[in-house]
Amino acid sequence: MTSSPPFEPPRHADVLAAQRVLDGYAVETPLLESPLLNERLGGRLLIKAEPLQRTGSFKFRGAFNRLCRLDQDSCDRGVVAYSSGNHAQGVAFAARLLGIPATIVMPRDAPAGKLSATRAHGARVVLYDRQHENREAIGQDLANRHGLTLIRPYDDPWIIAGQGTVALEAVRQAERIGTHIDLIAVPCGGGGLIAGCGLALVDLLPEARLFAVEPVGHDDTRRSLADGRRTCNPPGVRSFCDALLVDTPGDLTFGINRVLVEGGLAVDDAETAEAMRAAFTHFKLVVEPGGAVALAAVLAGRLDIRERACVVVCSGGNVDPKTFGAVLHEPAATARDV
Amino acid sequence: MTSSPPFEPPRHADVLAAQRVLDGYAVETPLLESPLLNERLGGRLLIKAEPLQRTGSFKFRGAFNRLCRLDQDSCDRGVVAYSSGNHAQGVAFAARLLGIPATIVMPRDAPAGKLSATRAHGARVVLYDRQHENREAIGQDLANRHGLTLIRPYDDPWIIAGQGTVALEAVRQAERIGTHIDLIAVPCGGGGLIAGCGLALVDLLPEARLFAVEPVGHDDTRRSLADGRRTCNPPGVRSFCDALLVDTPGDLTFGINRVLVEGGLAVDDAETAEAMRAAFTHFKLVVEPGGAVALAAVLAGRLDIRERACVVVCSGGNVDPKTFGAVLHEPAATARDV
Repeated sequence: MTSSPPFEPPRHADVLAAQRVLDGYAVETPLLESPLLNERLGGRLLIKAEPLQRTGSFKFRGAFNRLCRLDQDSCDRGVVAYSSGNHAQGVAFAARLLGIPATIVMPRDAPAGKLSATRAHGARVVLYDRQHENREAIGQDLANRHGLTLIRPYDDPWIIAGQGTVALEAVRQAERIGTHIDLIAVPCGGGGLIAGCGLALVDLLPEARLFAVEPVGHDDTRRSLADGRRTCNPPGVRSFCDALLVDTPGDLTFGINRVLVEGGLAVDDAETAEAMRAAFTHFKLVVEPGGAVALAAVLAGRLDIRERACVVVCSGGNVDPKTFGAVLHEPAATARDV
Repeated sequence: MTSSPPFEPPRHADVLAAQRVLDGYAVETPLLESPLLNERLGGRLLIKAEPLQRTGSFKFRGAFNRLCRLDQDSCDRGVVAYSSGNHAQGVAFAARLLGIPATIVMPRDAPAGKLSATRAHGARVVLYDRQHENREAIGQDLANRHGLTLIRPYDDPWIIAGQGTVALEAVRQAERIGTHIDLIAVPCGGGGLIAGCGLALVDLLPEARLFAVEPVGHDDTRRSLADGRRTCNPPGVRSFCDALLVDTPGDLTFGINRVLVEGGLAVDDAETAEAMRAAFTHFKLVVEPGGAVALAAVLAGRLDIRERACVVVCSGGNVDPKTFGAVLHEPAATARDV
């Protein structure tokens, strides 16, 4: 396996540049608000609704920004990505818009909707076994053998800068409604989204406090931030937050997050299911489990937003109807069993 | 029962005025799009996402516009409205924003979420029996006895003008993405939303073709448009589109719609359930049955949008989790039985 050259960490200016690249391609997703929830929470909760983004999650932002930086030769040869589903769809659709062939390495047990949507965007899908195979190795091997460019899900400066446009937009949208943001809570897997958000805030709103939210047992970023060094998750803990099941923080992302993120919070699946129901009831928004953890942290009282304005990123909505229906019907059972 | 003075029909300028009144209060709901659905339909489908409006449906627009026209004395005495749920919430929340006491007459069998949300907005709720009592009579009686202003759900020029801002926004949003709208499909109960949309288009986009969509058996507007006079629905036909179960077109609304609406389309509950699933999958949007009928008409091929740009209004998202879960889980059974 050949190693790639080390990347320079991205900066605030790279997020601004990504915003220009994405203009007209990404959706400026709305900031949603519910007077009834605000009243209950005693603060102002602003939901950045990334399920309404192209391909149903924020991942399109980073993917499109990354693919726009390829030279013509790399575009002709194509790209490869590994992903449990949202990065897959983001890369597949961005590649299609730009006329670049895409191969996506996905786990055999990824949600059916994520698999079929990735194929529908015209990508070639290669399946692997999450328990026994290494997706990075498969991706790197495909890249080496076919001359493809590997598009990493988070440890890439252009990916991080692209994801940061979520916070850039949110700050500007909050300004337009006359609100100054005090807190931002962001779902965290490999840490690309929150790293980008941190960079977006640096020059814009440096006093805002930024929190990474993860599922209990998959809170490697929370523990790594507390320890000051990258740690791994214990094996065997299950969660239905399929988009966030990353073993350890990214290298590039953690380097940013240890500086810019205030701390980590962990929520259990029952709290996440409750947040999905709240998004259904109050925002009419379909949020997938992994996309709902930051909202869960606020609703479960792990992040106190009283007398504060808090942006909560709901990062994606790619959930199978069966899982979503189960969350609506049998909350307790679902949170335990799925 | 005292009769109210007859209203002058609203005009295009009244929709423009409503837009100014609503600025900063109503959400400019996004136009959503799915490349995969566009490909399948061979046209450009733009969803005007009113579930993301305040109180979860377009009804807030008309209600707020109407209440802003009351004099101080009327505001002090308060308002009364009858509604199966969405107009109820719209009036209740608009009244709260403006500090006006609100009494809402709602059917005992309205969806639980619509009842509880109306109460949560601070309105006094009076229940009635849909089979044996007349809501207009109850509303008028409360108005007479307590000096309240009756806020009609559709046969009111300010209500119609407020609802018309849906189309006004959609036309401007489509312009911003460089698209010229050919077709507009709108869910239709009493006809206030589509009448307002018709007025919005008159001077702005007169060549766009406007269609009213209703549930089969509740297609009084479709048949009235075909006959050139207001007709009633046959009794006893069931539908789970609770927001659209109106017996006959409004007087004021039909006067507008017979001139400005091209025709009516009817969809069955199975087609509507399929549209709710499509909104879930492609737009991550929670749409209630009555809010999904226009999308159903397009997806079921009753409105051909090939090589056309079509705005479909998804008018509301106030659906109980149980009904929505059933639609996701057991499509065929739900469409028949609910």
